[in-house]
Amino acid sequence: MRSVNDILDLTRGEVEELISVALDIIENPKKYSEKCKGKKLATLFFEPSTRTRLSFEAAMYELGGNVLSVPGASLSSAAKGESVADTAKVVSCYADIIAMRHPKEGAAFVAAKNARIPVINAGDGGHCHPTQTLADMLTIFREKGRFDGLTVGFCGDLKYGRTVHSLINSLSRYSGVKLVLISPEELKLPEYVKRDAIVPNGMEYAETSVLEEFMPELDVLYMTRIQQERFSDAAEYQRLKDSYILTADKLAAAKKDTIVLHPLPRVNEISVKVDDDARACYFKQVENGKYMRMALILKLLEDAERTKVKTPLTCEKGLVYGKHRCNNPRCITSQEQEIEHIFREAGEGENKVFRCVYCEKEAD
Amino acid sequence: MRSVNDILDLTRGEVEELISVALDIIENPKKYSEKCKGKKLATLFFEPSTRTRLSFEAAMYELGGNVLSVPGASLSSAAKGESVADTAKVVSCYADIIAMRHPKEGAAFVAAKNARIPVINAGDGGHCHPTQTLADMLTIFREKGRFDGLTVGFCGDLKYGRTVHSLINSLSRYSGVKLVLISPEELKLPEYVKRDAIVPNGMEYAETSVLEEFMPELDVLYMTRIQQERFSDAAEYQRLKDSYILTADKLAAAKKDTIVLHPLPRVNEISVKVDDDARACYFKQVENGKYMRMALILKLLEDAERTKVKTPLTCEKGLVYGKHRCNNPRCITSQEQEIEHIFREAGEGENKVFRCVYCEKEAD
Amino acid sequence: MRSVNDILDLTRGEVEELISVALDIIENPKKYSEKCKGKKLATLFFEPSTRTRLSFEAAMYELGGNVLSVPGASLSSAAKGESVADTAKVVSCYADIIAMRHPKEGAAFVAAKNARIPVINAGDGGHCHPTQTLADMLTIFREKGRFDGLTVGFCGDLKYGRTVHSLINSLSRYSGVKLVLISPEELKLPEYVKRDAIVPNGMEYAETSVLEEFMPELDVLYMTRIQQERFSDAAEYQRLKDSYILTADKLAAAKKDTIVLHPLPRVNEISVKVDDDARACYFKQVENGKYMRMALILKLLEDAERTKVKTPLTCEKGLVYGKHRCNNPRCITSQEQEIEHIFREAGEGENKVFRCVYCEKEAD
Repeated sequence: MRSVNDILDLTRGEVEELISVALDIIENPKKYSEKCKGKKLATLFFEPSTRTRLSFEAAMYELGGNVLSVPGASLSSAAKGESVADTAKVVSCYADIIAMRHPKEGAAFVAAKNARIPVINAGDGGHCHPTQTLADMLTIFREKGRFDGLTVGFCGDLKYGRTVHSLINSLSRYSGVKLVLISPEELKLPEYVKRDAIVPNGMEYAETSVLEEFMPELDVLYMTRIQQERFSDAAEYQRLKDSYILTADKLAAAKKDTIVLHPLPRVNEISVKVDDDARACYFKQVENGKYMRMALILKLLEDAERTKVKTPLTCEKGLVYGKHRCNNPRCITSQEQEIEHIFREAGEGENKVFRCVYCEKEAD
Repeated sequence: MRSVNDILDLTRGEVEELISVALDIIENPKKYSEKCKGKKLATLFFEPSTRTRLSFEAAMYELGGNVLSVPGASLSSAAKGESVADTAKVVSCYADIIAMRHPKEGAAFVAAKNARIPVINAGDGGHCHPTQTLADMLTIFREKGRFDGLTVGFCGDLKYGRTVHSLINSLSRYSGVKLVLISPEELKLPEYVKRDAIVPNGMEYAETSVLEEFMPELDVLYMTRIQQERFSDAAEYQRLKDSYILTADKLAAAKKDTIVLHPLPRVNEISVKVDDDARACYFKQVENGKYMRMALILKLLEDAERTKVKTPLTCEKGLVYGKHRCNNPRCITSQEQEIEHIFREAGEGENKVFRCVYCEKEAD
Repeated sequence: MRSVNDILDLTRGEVEELISVALDIIENPKKYSEKCKGKKLATLFFEPSTRTRLSFEAAMYELGGNVLSVPGASLSSAAKGESVADTAKVVSCYADIIAMRHPKEGAAFVAAKNARIPVINAGDGGHCHPTQTLADMLTIFREKGRFDGLTVGFCGDLKYGRTVHSLINSLSRYSGVKLVLISPEELKLPEYVKRDAIVPNGMEYAETSVLEEFMPELDVLYMTRIQQERFSDAAEYQRLKDSYILTADKLAAAKKDTIVLHPLPRVNEISVKVDDDARACYFKQVENGKYMRMALILKLLEDAERTKVKTPLTCEKGLVYGKHRCNNPRCITSQEQEIEHIFREAGEGENKVFRCVYCEKEAD
């Protein structure tokens, strides 16, 4: 039995297999319309995300299954203090597979460890959101036909943007991918992403604070939202925010076949005038997300039918017990006292660090 | 492809066609039980209305379809600031048809303009609620067998009661309908409803502040709720509220075959003692609402299969761009800055006015 | 037509029949997978309880039916002041059966009186929760093979714990059942439960404030949560709370085939270390709850198809109108003014009392 907590829980080959199943679903929807008959997906959304929840639910319905929906936090037993572990055990009695969204980092991992059924991480705080990355990958593949050799720009909040880190991780498995990292100083891509994903895979990258600078070279432009609360200095935010808005004018400098992506919801980082441009692919991305979720649900249910033994997740390698404590207030360990603090070794030699298995924060 | 924002988006002939489909559904439910197999209705309720939401969802299930349910505002991406337009585009990737409830006037129209699938307005603030009117029409037809020549009393809040205006609009298409408008001075039917619907169609009408006055003449009595917040003077509200409560005593003066309607939920405007009277038809109205929603969902899905080209909505005729700005705080334009302010010409000659296409408020 | 408000609305024979249907469902799930095709369950949860709601919804899906879900209070028309009676009448137009959770005692009874379809009480405040008791009964039967002659310990809050009273009522129908009542003084089993259920059925019982005292004798240990808000003295709560936590150490003294139950959600009254002990049956209880709900839904729908005439509920015997008024602030009569205050005679001779039919509180 498999769960998916992080995009890296899927190998490059598995992501490509999911892409090819998704393409087959798009071609032959009827072939799949009864595949999950009698199966139930539980969408446990401990924080609201209508778009992601409806995408999972639509996916399950298009596979002929049913849905047990928990649309928001205040609606849950969480209010009474039930632990994520207990919730996962309880829901295992009702459903065949879980998609979980939770405000705390590591929550989906805790659920996966305790559930008797597969768990898909549908977003755990600012940490992982692997099915968004699957949507991104299918969109790039459908629009560009390949991953090798692409020049991919990421614009906006590269520091906290989990979808950015995740897509970089995914693209790092291909050759000749060049990255253009566009952000204000405050929101630059963290060093550890460079160290863990970019450098070891020999990816080329450029950094800039000017959206227009590399526009003509980009094959893919991945936009993200800049949130005011990320800035300590409000004036700095006011000064910067407009520079990272994609307008029709700025897009004019791009190639004819550049594609523009955005994980949505957007506030104003892409002008609505851009929506009618054929290069705007963010609503296609939404549709592709549904197809990749269908492929993933199918794959995990098939695995679960084959064996109840759980395949370890990526974060469960090189574990160190009882030596460190995580002090990240956004980590699930900060909310639930009964969870054991576990770390894992990452990096090598001088770069060796210990990361919390739940939230990936380095031990002090 | 058609959407329904206002009851006037359906012609008299179309309403009658929906009534006849609903009657066939009632007679032969099995014939319809798989009609929407594999289809999905998204119920996007940005403000809660359990009754209306469950009615749409029950309708879809009885047609063999599935439901993507967004049961309340705080559960939605709206909290993150996603626009109605983007929500409509996103949900178009998941569902085949949308029923939208929203606190702002014009929200469903914005959704219809942006969706790639049909949108049914399930209530946009105090503006329109066309499927309630369809429920009212089917109930009148099933109980009275006709519309021509009926005397219809409307009691309570005729100023803000959107279901009242909408049913008057609908009945104005028939001959010999007489209206009795029963309300306190503060809540009288607005002049524009008289000017736009009653006068041009030559309907007879009487106005009174006394519920009992025309009781013996009514074929239909449509009750509505009087809300305290509509009164600037609390004492005035206290003085008036009981006069507009329908009791068994007051109903005693009505004809044997008068029917009593109410859009529900009721607070106390109809005494529960009236419920057992055979003339009380408000729970039948609930059931009829489900059947009319089934008929409407069927019709719109069939239209959408025929063509993706959108039929313009009623409010999209005689448009005037860039000359006026809507200042109605309940209008969707007040919430979302990116929406273009558009007005349309209404009335003729001296009576010519410009109305906001979203909320129908006259330009200053 | 039958509704189930209290566990005592089902006879011993009926509970056993439900157990035997549940066992058959467990053996032959496919035989039942289309039994409720085309039927709809409305889960009206006016207070959140994800576990119970998902259990009902999973049950309905495994029977091939559909679900109309109202996942929480703020989402309902209740906010607009619709009465429980009207809600029940309205939902009768949409669904075939209702499962209702409500914070007020007696709410499900009011719904049952007004609905045209069967109503299952899924918890009305601190009053009744019959399907939890059905889950408990199936678990005891599956694990122990009998009810007669068992020694059953109840630990924690025996004063307010509705599941405790209900299971005692249910077990009182069997012979040789011995009860061990383990609680702090403040939370002892109320006298009326002894008088109404234990004494007349000649059950043996012992009371203790020490969890360990009778541990070696127990066949079943039913744990419940002790809530801080039940104590007037916070220091007393602090002093006591840990004594009623079941740890692996305390369980070590129990028999090899003792079973540990808990209605969940748990906070910390059972150490998570106990979860891996084969005697821990609280997650099995969750699964059994789903099967008993399936059996009950089936039974009530079959009854409803046979006749629309309502079988009176247990609380409707020996009614007294107009003599007493209920002053329990947790009773549905305190929330809704239009509900008639009705009492019923209970007990005999000197012990004769009048109890509110909604919440069972004695008349002053």
